Order: sequence, then structure tokens, then C-alpha cells
Amino acid sequence: MSDEIKQLPKLWTGDHYNEGIGRDDIFDKLREECGVFGVYGIPDACSLGYYGLHALQHRGEESSGMAAVESTTGKFTYHRGMGLVKEVFDQATLEGLPGNCVIGHVRYSTAGESKLANAQPLVFKYRDGDLAVATNGNIVNAPSIRKELESQGSIFQTTSDTEVIAHLIARSSKDFVSAAKDALQRIIGGFAFLIMTNDKLLVASDGHGLRPLVMGKLDGGYVFASETCALETCGAEYVRDVQPGELLVLDKNGLREDRFEKLERRATCAMEYIYFARPDSDINGINLHSARKRMGQKLALEAFFDADLVTGVPDSSISAAIGYAEQTGIPYELGLIKNKYTGRTFIQPSQELREKGVKMKLSAVRKVVEGKRVVMIDDSIVRGTTSLRIVNLLREAGATEVHVCITSPPFKNPCYYGIDTPDRKELIASQKTVEEIRQAINADSLYFLSHEGFIEAVGGNDGEYNRGMCLACFDNDYPTPVDPTSEKSCSC
Amino acid sequence: MSDEIKQLPKLWTGDHYNEGIGRDDIFDKLREECGVFGVYGIPDACSLGYYGLHALQHRGEESSGMAAVESTTGKFTYHRGMGLVKEVFDQATLEGLPGNCVIGHVRYSTAGESKLANAQPLVFKYRDGDLAVATNGNIVNAPSIRKELESQGSIFQTTSDTEVIAHLIARSSKDFVSAAKDALQRIIGGFAFLIMTNDKLLVASDGHGLRPLVMGKLDGGYVFASETCALETCGAEYVRDVQPGELLVLDKNGLREDRFEKLERRATCAMEYIYFARPDSDINGINLHSARKRMGQKLALEAFFDADLVTGVPDSSISAAIGYAEQTGIPYELGLIKNKYTGRTFIQPSQELREKGVKMKLSAVRKVVEGKRVVMIDDSIVRGTTSLRIVNLLREAGATEVHVCITSPPFKNPCYYGIDTPDRKELIASQKTVEEIRQAINADSLYFLSHEGFIEAVGGNDGEYNRGMCLACFDNDYPTPVDPTSEKSCSC
Amino acid sequence: MSDEIKQLPKLWTGDHYNEGIGRDDIFDKLREECGVFGVYGIPDACSLGYYGLHALQHRGEESSGMAAVESTTGKFTYHRGMGLVKEVFDQATLEGLPGNCVIGHVRYSTAGESKLANAQPLVFKYRDGDLAVATNGNIVNAPSIRKELESQGSIFQTTSDTEVIAHLIARSSKDFVSAAKDALQRIIGGFAFLIMTNDKLLVASDGHGLRPLVMGKLDGGYVFASETCALETCGAEYVRDVQPGELLVLDKNGLREDRFEKLERRATCAMEYIYFARPDSDINGINLHSARKRMGQKLALEAFFDADLVTGVPDSSISAAIGYAEQTGIPYELGLIKNKYTGRTFIQPSQELREKGVKMKLSAVRKVVEGKRVVMIDDSIVRGTTSLRIVNLLREAGATEVHVCITSPPFKNPCYYGIDTPDRKELIASQKTVEEIRQAINADSLYFLSHEGFIEAVGGNDGEYNRGMCLACFDNDYPTPVDPTSEKSCSC
Amino acid sequence: MSDEIKQLPKLWTGDHYNEGIGRDDIFDKLREECGVFGVYGIPDACSLGYYGLHALQHRGEESSGMAAVESTTGKFTYHRGMGLVKEVFDQATLEGLPGNCVIGHVRYSTAGESKLANAQPLVFKYRDGDLAVATNGNIVNAPSIRKELESQGSIFQTTSDTEVIAHLIARSSKDFVSAAKDALQRIIGGFAFLIMTNDKLLVASDGHGLRPLVMGKLDGGYVFASETCALETCGAEYVRDVQPGELLVLDKNGLREDRFEKLERRATCAMEYIYFARPDSDINGINLHSARKRMGQKLALEAFFDADLVTGVPDSSISAAIGYAEQTGIPYELGLIKNKYTGRTFIQPSQELREKGVKMKLSAVRKVVEGKRVVMIDDSIVRGTTSLRIVNLLREAGATEVHVCITSPPFKNPCYYGIDTPDRKELIASQKTVEEIRQAINADSLYFLSHEGFIEAVGGNDGEYNRGMCLACFDNDYPTPVDPTSEKSCSC
Repeated sequence: MSDEIKQLPKLWTGDHYNEGIGRDDIFDKLREECGVFGVYGIPDACSLGYYGLHALQHRGEESSGMAAVESTTGKFTYHRGMGLVKEVFDQATLEGLPGNCVIGHVRYSTAGESKLANAQPLVFKYRDGDLAVATNGNIVNAPSIRKELESQGSIFQTTSDTEVIAHLIARSSKDFVSAAKDALQRIIGGFAFLIMTNDKLLVASDGHGLRPLVMGKLDGGYVFASETCALETCGAEYVRDVQPGELLVLDKNGLREDRFEKLERRATCAMEYIYFARPDSDINGINLHSARKRMGQKLALEAFFDADLVTGVPDSSISAAIGYAEQTGIPYELGLIKNKYTGRTFIQPSQELREKGVKMKLSAVRKVVEGKRVVMIDDSIVRGTTSLRIVNLLREAGATEVHVCITSPPFKNPCYYGIDTPDRKELIASQKTVEEIRQAINADSLYFLSHEGFIEAVGGNDGEYNRGMCLACFDNDYPTPVDPTSEKSCSC
Repeated sequence: MSDEIKQLPKLWTGDHYNEGIGRDDIFDKLREECGVFGVYGIPDACSLGYYGLHALQHRGEESSGMAAVESTTGKFTYHRGMGLVKEVFDQATLEGLPGNCVIGHVRYSTAGESKLANAQPLVFKYRDGDLAVATNGNIVNAPSIRKELESQGSIFQTTSDTEVIAHLIARSSKDFVSAAKDALQRIIGGFAFLIMTNDKLLVASDGHGLRPLVMGKLDGGYVFASETCALETCGAEYVRDVQPGELLVLDKNGLREDRFEKLERRATCAMEYIYFARPDSDINGINLHSARKRMGQKLALEAFFDADLVTGVPDSSISAAIGYAEQTGIPYELGLIKNKYTGRTFIQPSQELREKGVKMKLSAVRKVVEGKRVVMIDDSIVRGTTSLRIVNLLREAGATEVHVCITSPPFKNPCYYGIDTPDRKELIASQKTVEEIRQAINADSLYFLSHEGFIEAVGGNDGEYNRGMCLACFDNDYPTPVDPTSEKSCSC
Repeated sequence: MSDEIKQLPKLWTGDHYNEGIGRDDIFDKLREECGVFGVYGIPDACSLGYYGLHALQHRGEESSGMAAVESTTGKFTYHRGMGLVKEVFDQATLEGLPGNCVIGHVRYSTAGESKLANAQPLVFKYRDGDLAVATNGNIVNAPSIRKELESQGSIFQTTSDTEVIAHLIARSSKDFVSAAKDALQRIIGGFAFLIMTNDKLLVASDGHGLRPLVMGKLDGGYVFASETCALETCGAEYVRDVQPGELLVLDKNGLREDRFEKLERRATCAMEYIYFARPDSDINGINLHSARKRMGQKLALEAFFDADLVTGVPDSSISAAIGYAEQTGIPYELGLIKNKYTGRTFIQPSQELREKGVKMKLSAVRKVVEGKRVVMIDDSIVRGTTSLRIVNLLREAGATEVHVCITSPPFKNPCYYGIDTPDRKELIASQKTVEEIRQAINADSLYFLSHEGFIEAVGGNDGEYNRGMCLACFDNDYPTPVDPTSEKSCSC
Repeated sequence: MSDEIKQLPKLWTGDHYNEGIGRDDIFDKLREECGVFGVYGIPDACSLGYYGLHALQHRGEESSGMAAVESTTGKFTYHRGMGLVKEVFDQATLEGLPGNCVIGHVRYSTAGESKLANAQPLVFKYRDGDLAVATNGNIVNAPSIRKELESQGSIFQTTSDTEVIAHLIARSSKDFVSAAKDALQRIIGGFAFLIMTNDKLLVASDGHGLRPLVMGKLDGGYVFASETCALETCGAEYVRDVQPGELLVLDKNGLREDRFEKLERRATCAMEYIYFARPDSDINGINLHSARKRMGQKLALEAFFDADLVTGVPDSSISAAIGYAEQTGIPYELGLIKNKYTGRTFIQPSQELREKGVKMKLSAVRKVVEGKRVVMIDDSIVRGTTSLRIVNLLREAGATEVHVCITSPPFKNPCYYGIDTPDRKELIASQKTVEEIRQAINADSLYFLSHEGFIEAVGGNDGEYNRGMCLACFDNDYPTPVDPTSEKSCSC
């Protein structure tokens, strides 16, 4: 399997589906499963899409795709492929996507779904023409809707839950926008949707705003993206975050702001603040580098360790480590380094070579940590295997003490809204006490940021947004009904 | 567009759809649109599929695909790609298709459909699990069925008419085989179908047997193919041709022979005999090299030209040319030669270079034809542009006379059963007299094999099969209702 | 190894050398080892080169290359790669080869040399600038010259003997043309050379004209090629064959006809007539289709078998089979067929599959040969393994008798002039009598064309060229000194 | 040209040379031109080579290569290609490089040399067998040696100066090691050499140790690398830096420490400390992250700016920025961010898109810098164009003041030892005063670290190594004779 993934860029010639294909989880990090990007009313929209998706690449490295519409003619084109944006698109494919309206997608996939057929935007032909859908997130009740649709004779091309929204729209006898509203009301979950027809772009965020989605302006048109970094890359001006339950309709009459659900409680995914979103992005007006630095500062206030240096696990925990260092005065040092060239085609060292000391992606810097007491900042502990490996790297490089500080509370509960988490029983924090985890990861100390500390760090001085996070992975308080027995299939 | 085609093998990384993409029809030959191959009950079925599809490659060079089922577990896998069988599959992808049941497909596409999404086997998920469909042929009433399905809320992933059969099956409340029978009864056209589920293989031929489909045995299992050459390549023993209106069901209970339609009139496509099928294949027991040689002999009897040599347009008319030569005693010579290395990635010479004399795929052999009176045998004249070009090649190489003999009657009417023919008004024989065509192609003489001569040549000494051909392209007598105003979309 | 070759088009990213790499000789045919093509004085010369090399592709499928010079500036560029001409070059690479002077090369390689470094044209930098060399053939005394050069401190980049000519030229203190003449005089063997500098093109054929080389005219410039088919493809007019010992110099002063050796005895390779050259090419004014047809006719006169049909082993023996059929009146039939799509990336069937009956490239046509007495025409028998396999294919398909006729005398002696032949002890005709060979290949009869018959067939009615062939592989009479103990390394 | 670079990974099928090909220097950073890695006496040496070269990838992204020897048999193999280590090598190519001795290379190329032929290790065949050479650095007197060799009849395959060392060795009549010593004595410059024959590995550093080269031990064998990070990645234990003028000979008798030149003055390239080497590497015992942090601290002491935040230009100046922040107490913030996915195939935005605000690799983080006074730390200013662009990015993102601090003295003089620097007249610091540069880059302030401050920062508390740097780019004091009129061709 690891072979399969490694060989993808070389052998990929088509569309492959093999239920048995898994993924070698080298480092058991959580993974965001998608990023979306949309353009309405800007010439050569797919070029903006290229740069916008490229800026969102960290949200999905496995497949990339765009669908485009020329609004004057309704002409619809698309291109999708396995790989990074820069691998899937070249000048020729961009030229094959004319028009001023585009939706695009980058995607990770979970085990068993490494196939082009699931690459988004999904495209369909229905009664009124073409339909393209790009999603970030997950529909909790997709399996039951799918079962209902199948019992009515629907056939599905993908294993993606996103396909149900297209069926729901196509089966409605109402006009397109009303049908889409009905469909959005039926589905439960956390999602950001971009839906494009031959003459319209629909933009929707679930009723709790679980997945981030922002709006920008450029050249008299509109740009939508999972993160503000994509607006910045495109030269677009940030307008606002799309609101929970909102439905934006863009067509030849311009932008119409509507909603399919009343706003009850904002619940933006906490892991976006902690780990997923790029540090230069802002969510709900909060810059993530700054928020993460504040998490490090809060950690320093809650848990000071008398150490010689602070180091962060790259890349996500550098900001927090600097915050910890600034707060404590302990110097920030480069104790761990990641090889930036490692990627999909990289041949992982064999077990034999790893035992001989051959490093993979991450190394400890011997000259920096040798003989030193180290505070190591990381963002989360999932299974604990990665943390153990990193602590051991530091010890093998000569660190005399390793104190691990985590910028979030213990991760105890699976996500049903689009984050690829293991089963609850594999989540170490749901099975073990903090002291047991400390032993399991071979650390001298282990500290998780407190619930309150985390909320304050995100909110900064301004308390307004605190109530606005989904913290279910920490406190089991899911903003929607979830079926804990159901498979956590992902829409994107 | 020629760019697109040229770049396919290099640039192809995914799934692209552009309505505007056409094809540069270098030589205006008719093109078969598909070949199908199926295996039931033989271990490592996909390896047989690989060799079987390879043997059918001439029926479709644009995309290749296979779906496989492991009958013990029902495990379903597939792989499809743009390109030749040998390009789409390698050892690794074959290993990813375990099981003893396989259906496979090779495909040409018409303009505007050069996309992976249309590559077959089409695969669907429906109420009862997985469904894969591979087709050769065309469903005449697919547009109206599709419209009806869309009005009921169906969404389509492809522009292929094959998708309607899956919808019809999925929407039925009957058991799978009954649903398939109902669906086959509803559709009108010429087709060979292979339909696979997690535990069954269905094999069906339209009510007139328009498209060839044969059954073979191997190692206690069954092999199905568009042509016998694929059986031979696989080492399978030929059993019989699948009969018009027949439905074969293969599952753990073995082979069940059923039919969905009464046999009325056999009407196998005449162009299979004339041009499409490989000369080493047999259709309805008739070997095609032999049949084509007899066409040449009949031509010789009907139209003797006093010439120095006979030559055939490669590759399809070599057999007939030898037949003409044997019958007349005029020596067969290699007056025309085709470069076998020319293929999809070949850069076609620019207009400027062509005017300077740079040849494309086909050349005349100067030393052979110079100063000679030539009888040139070809299988058909479609638009006439290719014939003109070939006659001119011979003249430029010094031929003093060029007498053109065609192994079939004038091609006057479009095909609605899976052959990619131009509109009627582009068919030169429907617009011009034979004398006018002769002038248009710059020949000294032009003779088309007579209707009777053609039928006798195919049938050999045995008249049984004569009544069994669809000759609609010559005599306008279509075996099914057709809608001459409808778009001739192809199912495969 | 077969892996290596199969994977070439996918995995090839660079320059690889592995002494141990061999080749799986599926059919033990002799292989020509190169084709050369040159242009002088024609704008956009590399486009002509593309079509010219494409026409010579049968002479070498493993690597392709061109070097170009812009004669006004002396600007020198080149591009080489593993693969067919259409794979190695695309529009972009052609645009990177500006100029009106080009030399190009297609190449097979022998075991152990499957590497890009040996791809030609070889390019060097020396005292006076750039030097590019493309060769077809072999230098018999290259090993000793190389040893001498190495002892004087020369270093070599390739295992190709062609490199010695560049060293000899560079080490001379004379002017370039004189140095080249000296170098050509020192080397012994059979070769066609194209040598290009920043302002000159040199064209040379060995003193016996062992390897074919022709000159054509086009648009006021000159074209040189291994075979006339490449002239025809380019629209060039044939002027004459380059003469043995001739040295043509093309530069801003036009064409100068010189020679480096007196013409003693013409000895063009007989296998070019029999097998290597394309049937539409002419060598020394003799068309090869016609010559091969005459070989078949001669065979018929020397050895008539009372059979039901004649068939030829495709592709090389079709012409001879037709000749045999015309002479005897026995019908020519398509008893054997080759799959034209089989190529480098094709996965050869495993031994297990082959035993089950899965065919490779070649099949017998059951319907044609079943119950028939067959005369099978082939061009040569090397090890005998292929002949055995083909005879068995015919028998398994039901042939009742198989009479094998070979269009040349027994192949008993290895070639030292650029044909990849096995060691003498592996040549079945040097080890066994005709009767023993007949038994070894499981034929009912076996007949080799007589020495005289062969010479007459090539010469046609005109005896002039008869004395002009190298028949050493049949009669051991090598036109140059050869060292039978030396490794038969190939220059190209 | 940017086209060429973009298309490399897709179109690269072979070996291309075009004098006119340049490189679009998006950011005018200096570039190291090579990294070398060698293994002696460790089984499966090429696997170590893979990970070692991967760790050195930052020293050269354009081509990668390895040559291997099986010491028991002397069997020699190699593989080279355009692209990253992970792109050039896969499991199959590694398996084709058996043996316990390997030399490897990663390479940048300068304009006009983007060709596979120049990829290293260069390989030759000479009197005694195979010879492979991998170099980092430059031979100052290569042009004159080359001219001399050419006048004696030598021919060259590459434009790389490395080839002269092979000629010098091959032309000597002494034994191999003596010949190599003679050759090393003749050449002048800055270089690290790995030279491999069928039974020996030679390791040499120029007389001033200009280019870094370290020795490690692993499993009873030896590892050599341009930087210690490669030892760490391989699990090898650092032994020592190779000394200036040293020649290490490894063969079946083990390691012999020799020298070809007396040690006069150590002069390690200052830019290695400032910019090239990875922060986790140590040179002459000094960790580079720590050294760069000290440069930031020194800057803070020399030039304090009253600002709201400190930011570093990623990736090289992060360490220094943290040092500046720690020293001053001004917070370190993420003011600039680099997209880590940008690479060779990335389509650079058109001028039109750039004017619209589309960002390339680097963005300023609006939320962080808006309304803030920024200290921006960078490592050097070459032409000034990049600095201007980054300052403007910060201003456009709302920075109110931008104070630029450079961690090295003004870069005034070109490098002759392997760094790709522009001509002196393009070096802004050699043409303008600091105040003029400040204006040119649109900064509010500009400060270059003092000569003394830089030396102290590198040396830390320990003065021993101060005298050991080549500071010629700052002070024009070249450790060897250089010819300022000569072309600065690079050996690697």
C-alpha cells in the first residue's frame, strides 16, 4: 500500500479503485480533508483558482480539481487529477477551463478511497444541465439519506457523501435555489459547500459554521475560500466570513445573501485554530499565528518548566514554541527540523534502516539539544506513537530532559465533521490518564493546555468568539446529533 | 485539439472534460467504437482480461478499463485510464484487480467526449452493491429514456448512453436479473452488453445481433469477447456466437441461458465483415480474411481492369487485394505502405510540410508503382477525401493509371448502432453518382462491389448467413426504428 | 531485465548504466542496430529529421536523438532520449533544435548497453568547438584503437566504438576534413557515418558499402538517410547511394565529393535485402519488396511443396510468401498474424499463462490453417527457437503439414558489421545439418534458398549488383579482416 | 525559459542541450551549486546515498545521481537524472546500484547548462577501468587546463570543469593515487571531491577548505557528506571535518589519511554559515542555527530599531530573526510566509496577474504586520530586486515602517569557488552606498552586520575559527589567485 501511494505520481494513468488500499500513517497527525475555492464574475477565473487552491494545498495533497463556467454561454468544463495543484494543472489544462466562474477543490482521502472518481468538484448532468459540487466537511446523516435514495433507485458513482446533495437537488421539483435550500436543510453536519450550475454559484456554510469559509472581493467579482491566505495569494480583499446557515447566490443579478437555517450557535472547529489552518490565515478575524503564539504563552503561564531551550514540532507548533519562549525567557531553539523535500514519492526507509538510525522526515538537531533540558511544544496527541517517536529522537540526540507541552486539551473524541480521526479507542487520551500518556511517550513531563486557557488564547483579549468553537473532540459536546455507531464517512 | 491528442500520453494526469475538444480526422475512416471482454470463473481473470483486451485494441485505442470481482468475497475493484491497454495497465495495477470475474473495455470516443469519465466499464453503487457495465454499440432511444430519467430526478456522471441501463436496473423493484431483462427490453439499438455485480456476470446481445459477441471456454470457466481473436489470444476454446436477444447469466450456479427478446431476424453489422473486425477473427463462423479475399475475387469477376499490378490500402484491404490478384493473375504488389509506428503522440506534419511532400502515415512505393497501371483495392469510401489523397499519392509516385475497386457497395446512410459515421450529407455516396465520385477522387475508374456480390462473398459457398446482415448503410433498411433527426450518441 | 525494458517509458527519468542488464529475446530475430538521417541546407531541418527518423524507426526502437546547427551562427543544440522518435521528441523539443543542419539517429542496443549515455548522436567539445557523430554499423578494430587511445590517456564516456572516431579527429593536428579522412582510413569495418561540426556536415560510407546510405535533394539542400523510405517520407528526391569509401563534405561552399579510400569491392549487407530494410526502400536501385517477392518465386522454383496454402511470417516475409504463391498457384492466406499494438511496455505473459495458451505477439489463424497443408515462408533461422515456436503455433491451430521455406541460405557465421548476432555456436545452421534443423523446428520439410537463387533474386534481371553483397553470414567470406576472438561491440 | 523549467518534470525524457536556455531568477538569491555524498564499506550503500542526498537536496534541486561499486567484483553502475532525489530514484533504480561503495551528487546549474550530460557523478572509462567523479565547488584554472588538454587532442562531453580532473588522471603514467595527487595539485580553486574507481574511493578538499566536507562512521564503514545533516539522517556518527588539502584514500586496506597540499590557511566559505548550509548542520563544529541566531543578536546590539515586531525572510533568516527578538525583547512574529508547495512545475503568475496582486512563493501576513513597525531580517542583498519586492509586500500588507537588517556585511565581490553570483556590476553593494541601497529597496532603515560582528557571531565565544573563513565576497581578499576576466564556470 505504501507502495501504491509512493508510486502515485509515476504510475497514475487513470482511475483506480481498490477497497483494500490503505495509507501508511507515518506520523499519526490528524488530517483536514479538504479545501475549497470559488470565483464568480472575474475573467480567467481558473488562473485565480490555480493560485487560490495552491494556497490551500495544505488542506489536501491527494487530488485537485476545478470546474469552470463561461457565464455568457453556460459552457461547462472541468479537470481533476490525483496530485498537487501544480502537478494536476499546467498551462494547457488551464486554457481548457475558460470562463469567469470557477469552483475548485483540494482533497485528502482516507483509506480505501484513493481514487480519482472521488476527486472533486464532483460533476453531474441533470435535468437543467451541468452541476458541479465542491465540499469541505462531512454530512453526518449522509448514510441514511443515501440508503433512502438508493431504495428509490438512485445510483452513485462515488463513495463521497457529497453526491447526496446533487441527488437531493435533482429529485426536487422546485426551482434550483429552492431545491438547494431544501437539500441543505435536510443534511446535518459540518460543511462548506460550493455549488455551480451553468449560470449560478451557490455558497453555503453549515448551521454552526463548523468549517471555515470566507468571502473576498476582486475586480468587481467575488472570491470564496476555505482560508483567508488564499484571498491574500490572489490579491483579493477580505470581506467577511460566510455565516453559519448562510446561503449566498451569485448569478447575473449579482450577489444575493440568503440563509437556509437560522443562526443558533457558532461552533467553528477548534482544530482549525490549533493545527489545520495556515498560520497566516485569519478565522473569524483571528490570525492563527497570533492565536498559536498565545497558546504557547498560556502554556508558559500554566506550566513553566526549568529548561535550557524551547523547541516546537515543525511546522505547526513553531508559533506556539516562540510564544512559550517569549513568555518564559527560555531561548527558542531549532531542536527539531523537518526535511521540506520529503513528499509522496519519497521512499520511506525500511524498518532495518530505521533501526540503524536512518531518519525520515523529522530529525533532532544534535548540536542544539545535546546535554540540554528541552521543552517540546506540540499541538495535539492523537495515538501517541508520533509523540513517542519525537521524544525519542530528542533523547537519542542527547537531550537530558524532555518536557512536552500540548497547545490544546486532551483529544478524546472522534470528529464527525470532516477531520480524519481514528476510532475513539485508538485516541490515547480517551484511554489513558495524563500520567499514563506521559509514560507512554517517554516524556519527563506532559502538560495539556487547559480548556479555559485554550479558549482565552484563541479569543485573545476579545471574548466574543470564545463561545463560537466546536470543542467536541475535547469535551464530547457535539453541536449536532451524531451517530457514534456510524461510519465516519467524509463528504469530500 | 490535435495538441490535446498529441499530449495525452504525456500530460494526462486526470479527468478532463471540454465540450469543445474535437479530433483531427487525418484519414476519414469509419471507426468502431468499442470492444468488450469478460471472464467468469477463472482465477487471475484480469491477466486474461489484459491479453484479451489487447487483442481487441483495434476496436478502440482511446481508453481501456477493467473491473474485477472476487466471487468468494464479492470484493469489487476497477481501473480505467486513457490510452492503450499496455499503457493503462502494468503489473501493479493488475495486482490491484484480484478475482475470478472481470469485465473489460476498449474505446474510441467521438468528438467532445475525450474524457476519462466516459471510459468504461462504467461503475456504480446502487442498493444491492456494485454494478459495472461495459458496452459495444449504441442505444437508439437512449436520449428519450435519459430525458425521462432526468425528469424523475436522475443525475448522470457521463455523456455515455450506457449509463441509462444502470439507472433502469437500479430503479426497478424486481430482482436483479428480472430488472436487467426489463431494462434490455426497453432499449432499442445495436449493442453487446457485459454487466457485472458483486456475484453475477450478465452477457447480452441486442435482438438483431448487430454487434458481434462470442463465447469461449477455458479452464472450466467462460470467456466472452467482441471477436474470436481475443479467445485465441487467451488460449480459450470457441464455443459459439452469442445469439440475438440472448441473455446469459453466470453466477455460482453456473451458466444459465435465457433471452430477453425473441429472435426475429439476425442482422450483424456488414462493416464488421468489411473493415472493423480483425482478419483472423471469425464472425458467425466466417473467417474475415477469407471473406475479404472472396470480396476481392468477386470484384475481379465483376470488374477486371487490365493493369500491371494490384495493391491494397493497408491494413484492411490487403486480403481483398490478394484475392483480386489471385483471381485475375495480375501480380499483387506493395504499392502502398503504412508506417506502423505512427500513433497518438506522433506530431502530424504541418500544412506547409505536407505541401512540401512530407508524408504522414501512408506512402506510395515509387519503385513499385512508377510507370505502372495500378488496381487499388479499398474497403469503403466515406467522405472521399482519403481516397483522393491515396490516389494522388500513387499518381505522384508515378502510377500511370489508378483503378479503384471498393469491396463493398456505396456507403450512403449513417449508422445508428455504434459506428462513428458522419452526417448523411457528408457521405459522398449519398450525394454523388459513382462517376462523380470517380472524378472527385481523381481515379481512372471506380467500381463498387455489387450488393449481391458482397453478400455472396461474405457467405462463401454457404448461403445460410446471407440474410443475417445489417446492410442499412448501403440500402437504408434499418433493422430497428431509428430517429434520423436525433443525435447519434454512442453508448460506449 | 525484461522488467527494465518494460518499464522504460514509465520510469525513465535519466541516465542509467548497469552492466548486468540483458534483454529477453522473445523472438530470436536478428536486429539491425541503427539508422541515421542527416540534413544540410534546409530550414527547420529538425522537422525533416523527425519525419526521416520516424521512417527509419524499424532500424532502432530503443533510443532516438538529433543534433542541430544553425549555420549562420554555428549554434549547436541536441536532444536525445530513450524511446521511439515520437516519444523522445515533441513540439517543444523540436523548437529547441533550430538550424538548417541536423544529424539524427535511432538505435537498438545490445545487452548491457541499455543506457542513455550511448544514445546517439554522440556529442563532444574539442579544440575547434562542437562535434556530433551518428553511426550505423561497427568498427572491427575499435577495441585495439581504443586500447591505444586509453594508453595515451584518453577517457571515454560511452561503451560505443563510435567514440574512437571523435578521439582520432581531435588528436590530429591537421585540419578537420583531413583529420577525418585519416581517421576513416584507420578504422576497419562496416559503417555509415554522419559527422557534424559547427559549420560542416561530413558523410561517409565504409570502403565496401556494407551499410546502406543514400543521398537525396530537397529545396536546394541535401538529405542523407540509411534508407530511401526516409527520403520519400520527407518529400526528398533520391539522388544516388553513397559510394563505398566516399566522403562527402557539405559546408557553406556546397557539396564536395571526395573519398578516403579507393573503391575495391562493393559488399552491401545481404541481410538488408532479406530482412532489415523496409520493403518500400530501394538499396542500390533495387526495391526490397520486389527483391523479396523474387526470393519467394525462386524458392517456389527450387522447392515446390504440394500444399493448400502459403503463409508468410509477418511482417518481413509477406512479400516472399506472395511471390511463392504467385509462382506456384497455391493460394496465399493469412495463416499467421502479429498484434501491431505489442511494444516495449507490453507485459509478456508468464510461463504459466503461456502454457495455458496465452499468445504473445504472434498467433496462428485457426480458421485459415485448420486441416490444411501449409507452406510457411520465413527470412532466416538464427537459433531455431522462434521457428519451432511458429511451426508449433500452426500445428496447434490444426495445420496438418508445415513446410518451411527460408528466403536465404543457412545463417552460419556471426556478423562483425553492426548486426546483433549471437555467438557462432548458438547459430543453429553452424551446428546442425538441414535435416537436423528440420527436426529441431518440428517441420515436415525445410528448404533454404540456394546461394545462387538468392543472388539472382536480389539482382533481378540485372546482374550488375550481384557481386556487390557481403554474404559472410552464409559463406564466411568477410570483406575485411575480422578478429573472431574479439567481442563484437557495436559502434552505434 | 520559465516554460522549460516548468515542463521539466513532465517532458523530461532524455538529454537536452540548448545554449540559449536560461533561468528565470524569481528571487535573486545566491545559489549553492552542489552537494556531495559518499559511502565506503557499508552494504546497500545506495540506500544510504538516497537518504544522504535527500538531506543535501537544498544544495541542488536540478539533478541527482549516484554511482556504485561492488567492491568484491569491481562491478560499476550508475544512475543520474534531472530532478529531485525522490524523483530520480525509485526502488527499482536503487536495486540497480548494488555495492558497498557509492558516490552521489545533487546539483544546481547555471544558465545554459540545464542538461543531463552535466549531471554528476561524471563517469568515464579509462585505461584502468571505470572512474566516477562528484564535486562541489569550482576550479579557477579549469579553462586554461581545458584549453591545454584540448590542444593535446582531448575531447570533452560536458561543459563541467570537473571533467578536467579525469583527463589529468587518465593522462598520467603514474599509479592512480599518485596521478590523482598530481592532478589535485595542478588545480586551483575551492572544491570538495569524491572520486571512485572499481576498487577505491578518494576524498579531497581544496587547500583552503573552501567547501565544507565531513566524515562520519557507520557500521564499520565511512560516510562523507557536504554537511553533517546528511550524517545525522543516515544515522552515521560524525568523526571530523575533512581538512584543507587532505586526501583520504579508502580501499580494501581501509582508510589512509594523506594530503596533496600543506595546510596554509583555512578559509571556509562565509556564505555557508550565513545562508547555504542547513540550520541543523555544523561546520567546523559550529551549529548553523546557533550561529545565525548569534548573527541576529549581534545585529540587535549593533542596530536596535524601535519596532513592534521582528520578522525573518523565510527560510534562511528565521533563526537570526529569533536571535534579534530575543536580544531586543521585540516580539518575533510571522510577518512573511513562504508557500512550501511551490516548486519547479509551479506556473509563475503572469505579469498581469502579479500586477493584480497575485502572490508567488512569498506573502506578507496582513493581520500580523498591518499598522506595525517591522524589523525585517534577511541574510544578504545581491541585486536588491528581491529585497525591494519583500519590503513592498510588507508595506502593501500595511506595515508602517520597515527596517531591514542583514546578517552579513555588504556583498560586493563575485565568488570564484562554486557560488552562482552575478557579475560584479550587478551586485548592488559594489555599485551603491548603504544609503543608496536603502532607497533602492524602499526601506526606512538598512543595516548590514559589521565585519567584526559577523566574525564574532560565527565564532561564538571561541575565537579559533575566526581566521578560518573566506570573506572575499565582502572584503575582496581571495584565498587563491583568481582571474577576474575569466568566465566563472562551475565544476559541478
